[in-house]
Amino acid sequence: MKTDRLEAFSDGVLAVIITVMVLELKVPEGHTLHDAVTTTGHSLLTYLLSFIYIGIYWNNHHHMFQLIGRVDGRTLWANLHLLFWLSLVPFTTAWMDESHFARTPVMTYGVNLLAAAIAYFVLQLAATAAEGPESPLRRALGADRKGKLSPVLYIAGIATAAVNVWIGMALFTGVAIIWLVPDPRMERFIAENHVGE
Amino acid sequence: MKTDRLEAFSDGVLAVIITVMVLELKVPEGHTLHDAVTTTGHSLLTYLLSFIYIGIYWNNHHHMFQLIGRVDGRTLWANLHLLFWLSLVPFTTAWMDESHFARTPVMTYGVNLLAAAIAYFVLQLAATAAEGPESPLRRALGADRKGKLSPVLYIAGIATAAVNVWIGMALFTGVAIIWLVPDPRMERFIAENHVGE
Amino acid sequence: MKTDRLEAFSDGVLAVIITVMVLELKVPEGHTLHDAVTTTGHSLLTYLLSFIYIGIYWNNHHHMFQLIGRVDGRTLWANLHLLFWLSLVPFTTAWMDESHFARTPVMTYGVNLLAAAIAYFVLQLAATAAEGPESPLRRALGADRKGKLSPVLYIAGIATAAVNVWIGMALFTGVAIIWLVPDPRMERFIAENHVGE
Amino acid sequence: MKTDRLEAFSDGVLAVIITVMVLELKVPEGHTLHDAVTTTGHSLLTYLLSFIYIGIYWNNHHHMFQLIGRVDGRTLWANLHLLFWLSLVPFTTAWMDESHFARTPVMTYGVNLLAAAIAYFVLQLAATAAEGPESPLRRALGADRKGKLSPVLYIAGIATAAVNVWIGMALFTGVAIIWLVPDPRMERFIAENHVGE
Repeated sequence: MKTDRLEAFSDGVLAVIITVMVLELKVPEGHTLHDAVTTTGHSLLTYLLSFIYIGIYWNNHHHMFQLIGRVDGRTLWANLHLLFWLSLVPFTTAWMDESHFARTPVMTYGVNLLAAAIAYFVLQLAATAAEGPESPLRRALGADRKGKLSPVLYIAGIATAAVNVWIGMALFTGVAIIWLVPDPRMERFIAENHVGE
Repeated sequence: MKTDRLEAFSDGVLAVIITVMVLELKVPEGHTLHDAVTTTGHSLLTYLLSFIYIGIYWNNHHHMFQLIGRVDGRTLWANLHLLFWLSLVPFTTAWMDESHFARTPVMTYGVNLLAAAIAYFVLQLAATAAEGPESPLRRALGADRKGKLSPVLYIAGIATAAVNVWIGMALFTGVAIIWLVPDPRMERFIAENHVGE
Repeated sequence: MKTDRLEAFSDGVLAVIITVMVLELKVPEGHTLHDAVTTTGHSLLTYLLSFIYIGIYWNNHHHMFQLIGRVDGRTLWANLHLLFWLSLVPFTTAWMDESHFARTPVMTYGVNLLAAAIAYFVLQLAATAAEGPESPLRRALGADRKGKLSPVLYIAGIATAAVNVWIGMALFTGVAIIWLVPDPRMERFIAENHVGE
Repeated sequence: MKTDRLEAFSDGVLAVIITVMVLELKVPEGHTLHDAVTTTGHSLLTYLLSFIYIGIYWNNHHHMFQLIGRVDGRTLWANLHLLFWLSLVPFTTAWMDESHFARTPVMTYGVNLLAAAIAYFVLQLAATAAEGPESPLRRALGADRKGKLSPVLYIAGIATAAVNVWIGMALFTGVAIIWLVPDPRMERFIAENHVGE
């Protein structure tokens, strides 16, 4: 099967997830800047973090399926599995936010990010398995250092959040920053191999 | 008419349905894991079940329209009819969940699943009718055992839920598991006939 | 400009509108069928009516842009104008529903439908103006009896709702039924002229 | 990378933003026209203004990517950056509305519009940078007077809103009116250069 509908559906789900989080933002109590900062400042920051995370997944998903020609039923489900974990992000974000960064909600947020990272990894395996050993994606990924480092940092973040939530949050933010830089492997590979032209 | 816009609209509706259910998930009361499990554990499980159901419909819809070349007005409405029943899934899920699996809401959930299955069957008829007796979809479906077994299991689930809701839920979950396995008929047929290449 | 992105955006907006209305459905108070019917029965019926209306607009929009090759900036805005009125449907539906069919909310619902019908007519003018007098859409529409009858019935519905809301509702439902029948003009024209092949 | 998926995702996000705002509209308290006007009249007007703004961005985004052939990772993030600010529009609209146009919320709304305008400008830079000095978009934009005037008017609106919110609102509305007129530069350029044919 071609990848166009898988991409369209994923775009739709990610578009809804990313904007639905805005519905969780409560209007500030009071009408001054001070009111806004004290009652919604932390919500806006967590929204920003989760927005960036969903953006990163969209970005990487986009890069991945530039290099995938065809998909089978297993890949469709691996993709739905990833979307499931990402669809929980508004929920875990809201809990973390509402608890004002209590220990368990912050750790749960980290577990959610970890589960999404694992689901992404599984999706990559499923998508390249369907393509065989000479898969362009597999060659473009190379050692996939970012992909291997992220789960380690998530686990470190979850563990340290048990002691101090801010170290955990710093690690979760750190992973986002690592991924914010667009993946030169992919872009170079796409440019060199004239994929999609 | 070509199928691309029907597919795009269905993707959009299913993407919204699948993510809108997250909005029904209430943030746990309290900030411990125990609070989360006791106040939202069952909501997360019902969310997971409904997510899988919508995923199954998307998956099957995707497979179906791989094999359909053109659609007429009747098929457009048969498709909207299916989307109508699927759009009620967040509503019946929320009722079942809020009632902590009371008898009538569980039976209503089953009726919703049954209605969606019938609507899917009608859509299949409409889509193949427009294509004539030599429709590739009709040939790919063959005996369509899963499609014929599901309504029977739904009816059994609705009936047994009147006595014991957990048997009903087990049957509804069982149908989901049957469908989770991707349809080899379709994939084999698509591969053998080089559809969409 | 090509019509693909206008169609994609409209599909997205209509998909969100049609499913967002489900969020307005409140979970029944109580766990019996009697509770469900008395507390949400009328909400489900109004949801069904509005679902059909949005479905009709999607259907007609789909048929229309099968016959339109290119669009200009004016058509983009005429399309947004139509989407604006349709985006208010969940709002006017909710008011009508919450008021248990009080006079003003029912009349407001009718005004909303009327405004959408006018916006659709304006969109048709804008889309065909860009195409010149030999526009295929213009020829396919012919006398456009349904398009001309609907506003008359809406106005009659709004006027009679001032006296008796149920006559008004019957007229609004009647228009929906008229449109539910797929437009044979379009389909015949598309088939005869091999549009989109 | 081709622009189709960037466009599809942006369409999805903008479609959700534009319709999600309807969910913020509260059903009027009471069932008369007077009740509706006094309790939701201002909400409907702010909804209309924000709807037009999102419509303008969709329109301009559409025009822009008619003239862009390929995008790199930087452009993907510049686009997500724009979508981030636009995704906050329902939030700042709701605050302004709930405060009945208090000073700080109105100024915040203006800051949101200003940030979106800057993000749009940055996206334009990123998109044309990837195309080199002979970019068709750069030539089509020419002096880009509207693009340069808007931030000035937003800043003027934010400053004057500190003294009188209605002057600020008038300026924000004024910018919307300036952009409502479709961009003849783009259309002329597209027509003359047969882009997308």
